[in-house]
Amino acid sequence: MTKNSRTAITPTRQDDYPEWYQQVIKNADLAENAPVRGCMVIKPWGYGIWENVQRVLDQKFKETGHQNAYFPLFIPKSYIEKEAQHVDGFAKECAVVTHSRLESDGEGGLQPGGALEEPLIVRPTSETIIGEMYAKWVDSYRDLPILINQWANVVRWEMRTRLFLRTAEFLWQEGHTAHASAPEALEETQQMFALYRDFAEKYMAMPVICGEKTEGERFPGAINTFSIEAMMQDRKALQAGTAHFLGQNFAQSCGILFNDANGERQHAWTTSWGVSTRLVGGLIMTHGDDNGLVLPPRLAPTQVVILPIIPKESARESVLQACHQLKRKLQDTSFDGSPLKVEIDHRDLRGGEKRWQWIKKGIPITLEIGPRDLQSDTALVGRREQEADQRQSFPTTEIVAKVATWLWEIQNHLYQKAMHFQKSHTVTLDTKEAFYDFFTAKNPKKPEIHGGFALAHWNGSAEIEDKIKKDLKVTIRCIPTGVEKEKGTCPFSGEKSPQRVLFAKAY
Amino acid sequence: MTKNSRTAITPTRQDDYPEWYQQVIKNADLAENAPVRGCMVIKPWGYGIWENVQRVLDQKFKETGHQNAYFPLFIPKSYIEKEAQHVDGFAKECAVVTHSRLESDGEGGLQPGGALEEPLIVRPTSETIIGEMYAKWVDSYRDLPILINQWANVVRWEMRTRLFLRTAEFLWQEGHTAHASAPEALEETQQMFALYRDFAEKYMAMPVICGEKTEGERFPGAINTFSIEAMMQDRKALQAGTAHFLGQNFAQSCGILFNDANGERQHAWTTSWGVSTRLVGGLIMTHGDDNGLVLPPRLAPTQVVILPIIPKESARESVLQACHQLKRKLQDTSFDGSPLKVEIDHRDLRGGEKRWQWIKKGIPITLEIGPRDLQSDTALVGRREQEADQRQSFPTTEIVAKVATWLWEIQNHLYQKAMHFQKSHTVTLDTKEAFYDFFTAKNPKKPEIHGGFALAHWNGSAEIEDKIKKDLKVTIRCIPTGVEKEKGTCPFSGEKSPQRVLFAKAY
Repeated sequence: MTKNSRTAITPTRQDDYPEWYQQVIKNADLAENAPVRGCMVIKPWGYGIWENVQRVLDQKFKETGHQNAYFPLFIPKSYIEKEAQHVDGFAKECAVVTHSRLESDGEGGLQPGGALEEPLIVRPTSETIIGEMYAKWVDSYRDLPILINQWANVVRWEMRTRLFLRTAEFLWQEGHTAHASAPEALEETQQMFALYRDFAEKYMAMPVICGEKTEGERFPGAINTFSIEAMMQDRKALQAGTAHFLGQNFAQSCGILFNDANGERQHAWTTSWGVSTRLVGGLIMTHGDDNGLVLPPRLAPTQVVILPIIPKESARESVLQACHQLKRKLQDTSFDGSPLKVEIDHRDLRGGEKRWQWIKKGIPITLEIGPRDLQSDTALVGRREQEADQRQSFPTTEIVAKVATWLWEIQNHLYQKAMHFQKSHTVTLDTKEAFYDFFTAKNPKKPEIHGGFALAHWNGSAEIEDKIKKDLKVTIRCIPTGVEKEKGTCPFSGEKSPQRVLFAKAY
Repeated sequence: MTKNSRTAITPTRQDDYPEWYQQVIKNADLAENAPVRGCMVIKPWGYGIWENVQRVLDQKFKETGHQNAYFPLFIPKSYIEKEAQHVDGFAKECAVVTHSRLESDGEGGLQPGGALEEPLIVRPTSETIIGEMYAKWVDSYRDLPILINQWANVVRWEMRTRLFLRTAEFLWQEGHTAHASAPEALEETQQMFALYRDFAEKYMAMPVICGEKTEGERFPGAINTFSIEAMMQDRKALQAGTAHFLGQNFAQSCGILFNDANGERQHAWTTSWGVSTRLVGGLIMTHGDDNGLVLPPRLAPTQVVILPIIPKESARESVLQACHQLKRKLQDTSFDGSPLKVEIDHRDLRGGEKRWQWIKKGIPITLEIGPRDLQSDTALVGRREQEADQRQSFPTTEIVAKVATWLWEIQNHLYQKAMHFQKSHTVTLDTKEAFYDFFTAKNPKKPEIHGGFALAHWNGSAEIEDKIKKDLKVTIRCIPTGVEKEKGTCPFSGEKSPQRVLFAKAY
């Protein structure tokens, strides 16, 4: 599709970014709003991406010694009340269960009955209930560490929701570990944080900035929160995964006590870490273009789709036969350690329409086979990351031989492209004026396109952080780790700064 | 362990079956009661079994053309009200969300705030909400069939709960399909029913009786319910999986309408089918013995455990080295299409204690390696389905060569043993007296041990069914399918009967 032609998604990113996002989801058939306020229905193509996220992460969690378990959906109100910061963080927006049945209202309808003695909260996160169990399970240092992960649904009664990015119910994994020493717990936190970065970059092809949260942005109850922050195409930041060092806070409120090697009673040190279906939103906004979703091959539910082109009924059988033959050969090849995921789209739709549906779904490779390909044993190859009119014919033997290489090329290309985008919209700023300009003046007519990432010095004061947030809706996304620390002067206070921090508007 | 010696589980099955069940779960560290009434915490060893159930079934669902998706946890009250039978079935016991936040109660505590306009029900099953979505997605016969499965948690506010068998919250899969014709929907129902039977027998090593439910035992809103029924070791029946042909009932209440090939507007035909974490309870009660859990190798989280025996510190290094060497060789072998799942238990516990812990966990094979095995390059092999004192020494090369064969032998042995048990406690009864005797007189001193399965004639009347249920707590588990139908006389009414049906007490 050339620059002047119509795009498959209306509006374009440039014209209306938030609406573009909704339209990509709709056109790729990823998810839709449920009739229950703030909840979403994740449709098979969207859920297929999440299943791949789960498969990869689950294997990595197990390789690093974690086991899965399952804890209750409901948390007694009294547990939430125990940890003061946690109350502030999560009590404001949660689903409260107060009754245990529906009974006749005498008018043909139903009403709540069987009032509970203590209301239950649908878990917004599980530190309190899991901590309560760990307190029972731990008695000696020999019982530590506990390294457990849970795949679950959680509920936070968000007022403003957006598919995948912020929904009342969402799916996630939450790791919860308990350790006999602070250094060990901190090491676990950093291990999982590094694992998330690796996953984001190598599987999602999404470059991230890694760092530690400021006090104001930490998880309620955490000592340190580490996060990975990705730049979306509207230049806003998406917090894509977090790992928390909880110190002894939850161990104290839940009573996780153990006898150490010297026989002394101590509170355990705990961590928690999670990523959610929000990652699917990140994937869409990192790679999607004006023709729809673009999937990194390592997470695509289907990597290759074969499209039979049947202009006349007499050709049907021979074309389908060629498609099946190619499918079998492709299934015998492998990509990323698994058999290639390939399917044939048999639907009776015009070739162009069918192909565009797959383009909008972000399929990495399309292979079209029509009557003319039969003699030459070829197929027309389309690569999602290239322009739609750049399709090229290849002999099927060459396709079979090269398909895995092409998929890796696409995977790498997406990462490079996203990295280029991130770098081109990340600036180093040294004056307050330049900083305010960056986040306000660049695109006055398109308020949804934001400056980008700004690396600036900061004196460590919460007041300055708050002022910037109030003025610009810009927050400190993280204090970058793993970079060389450059000392300087905070442009907002004139005071000393130990290193630059990352500022951006955020989802 | 010989007959006269102490068993690892107290009490034995014979002494107190329900308590034996709880103790097996506790000693195998499978799960425990949560501090939230009726909910359970599934611990890693128990969850590992469930993960294997998921892995196998999920693959089978996909092979039969189903895709996974995810629908909301919450169902508006008005949806439940739409389907009258469904109301009767599920409104009585459900978690009702009435508020959207916790707020200060002015006394340092929290109280529910933000009352919802319409209460929400935590899904007890998802026919209504999924039907609501299907109604949006379907317009033409070309949109059918929809073949979707969901892995999810559900909540039913049961008053009397038992770990895995009946808990307020449980994990399951629920398949929901919509079709353009009744025969197609019925065929789908029977396909999934057959898939469950196959899974129960081939993976769980649990023989089942397959059949159709009577009207009184059907799923609320279903036209036909098919179930697989397994005999537990107290001779009670466990309904282990169900598949429902829902006719047009839910399509009518949800408005799933489509234009058929002739352009006429019709309601779709739907099905639903599910199995849950209850299967883990079935596994325990099918194979467990007085020494604890016994796991069929195909579903064991770990199939082989290597136990280093270190009587003196000087032997530690060489023994551990031999263990690691054997582990590597075993990991290179495969069982049931995957690499063998083997681990080393490094814990500093006495050899006997460590081995008994694994026996109680139901591990199929233990391999003990001590200093004396080093010279001979042997290990002591223990098989869980044999007596605990029948361990035998084998050269490690032979172990590596034979381990997969042994696991298949164990898998088959467990099935044969369970089948023998089921057959020996299944009787054909032709008089009312014999029937009542069977369910009351056999074990007067052990009320928890029940007669077993009784195949008897029945005239099809709900009154007789109710009377038997009232008198004996015995229900018609199913009208067996796939067996030769033998006509006869109903011993309760003297009327004609088209075939024998299966009676039993049930979980």
